[in-house]
Amino acid sequence: MATEKCFAKGSAPPGPVPKGHIRLFSMRFCPFAQRTRLVLNAKGIKHETINIHLKEKPDWFLEKNPLGLVPTLETEAGEVVSESSITCDYLDEVYPQKKLLPSTPFGKAQQKMMLEHFSKVTPYFYKITLAKKDGEDISGLVTELKAKFVKLNEDLIKKKTKFFGGDSITMIDYMMWPWFERLEAYELQHLLDSTPELKKWYGLMQEDPAVKASSYSTDTYKAFLKTAYFDGKPDYDYGL
Amino acid sequence: MATEKCFAKGSAPPGPVPKGHIRLFSMRFCPFAQRTRLVLNAKGIKHETINIHLKEKPDWFLEKNPLGLVPTLETEAGEVVSESSITCDYLDEVYPQKKLLPSTPFGKAQQKMMLEHFSKVTPYFYKITLAKKDGEDISGLVTELKAKFVKLNEDLIKKKTKFFGGDSITMIDYMMWPWFERLEAYELQHLLDSTPELKKWYGLMQEDPAVKASSYSTDTYKAFLKTAYFDGKPDYDYGL
Repeated sequence: MATEKCFAKGSAPPGPVPKGHIRLFSMRFCPFAQRTRLVLNAKGIKHETINIHLKEKPDWFLEKNPLGLVPTLETEAGEVVSESSITCDYLDEVYPQKKLLPSTPFGKAQQKMMLEHFSKVTPYFYKITLAKKDGEDISGLVTELKAKFVKLNEDLIKKKTKFFGGDSITMIDYMMWPWFERLEAYELQHLLDSTPELKKWYGLMQEDPAVKASSYSTDTYKAFLKTAYFDGKPDYDYGL
Repeated sequence: MATEKCFAKGSAPPGPVPKGHIRLFSMRFCPFAQRTRLVLNAKGIKHETINIHLKEKPDWFLEKNPLGLVPTLETEAGEVVSESSITCDYLDEVYPQKKLLPSTPFGKAQQKMMLEHFSKVTPYFYKITLAKKDGEDISGLVTELKAKFVKLNEDLIKKKTKFFGGDSITMIDYMMWPWFERLEAYELQHLLDSTPELKKWYGLMQEDPAVKASSYSTDTYKAFLKTAYFDGKPDYDYGL
């Protein structure tokens, strides 16, 4: 679809948010933006996606969100919401269908605590890739990441549930998924061999319709990562 | 009060959470724990405070919260909630009196976005103190922090409100306050001279009963910071 191509500096701004829709400013391969795409898909929310060239951001985008980050949501009323978990909570609250966060305060707090801990995991993917690029030894970083995976595996064993918030998918699973989807592309798939419960979760997640609707192939991620990290010129429109 | 003294490794664990109360694990001078103390005070929630020796944490505390962080809440039912903003949101949801977060999803999202931006401000206090300790030039760091203050000042001008969430105190004001309370102790008070709206907010906050109930004097903070950073032996019971 031609409309998936990213908007760069100098591009004409999109028109008003289409009636009955919410707009997502995204980047096709951004794991944080994928969180929001997963929630939009899981809840069946009518939305329009505008992909942004993150190295050459349009002025009209920076006017809407001076931080220039994706994901950013824009409503018909012109309200702007950014930061991945904030956009997801916002969507879950505004759109009552298929609630992804628990209804109890303690249930919500538990999901937020898991998310906070997971925020210590995501930087490893970036650090490992940079170290590889620079030809450095990555074994120390991989060992640290492995320990985090073991901890996640223990969490599932302790909970005795298929997913991190119970026996069906909830918000926390979608918040974690984008990095797991890229495991093979980062050549870190082997970490799952020593974490069988986490590997089962990984398999179940791959079957989820919202995951399927928002995912790209390992080959696509690999190709994009190569342009972004190794060539230093991210091809945001790769494959279009 | 003798009960304010911190519990260290080897101490006897406290008994069950008192009936009709919630328990806060805290450290008297921790700005993150003060967020929760502010919310407990503002909402008039009956609570018991147990201060923890953060350099020699009791085993029974690490069993309740393996990360060993303060603030941590413990309910009568044995539920454990940690991370400052998660504890505050939890309290605001469980205790309906004097709601501190807005009721609308967009209002909540706005507060979360402000909090996210403010999370880039707090590390400066730590960095500046460490640089001072090491006899390094702090002018670069102070200039960066000043720019953050100017941005906060502009936010207030744009909003045309006395506080960050409107004309009365809301959650975001309490989330930001602890670092401002310590401005003089960090010798950064002068930063407010070029941000008049922020200075007005600072003055109004000092009048708030919850702020008054949770605050220590500049001299006390200075003395504690000296023990923590310069002597390398934090005196958690300073002044008791």
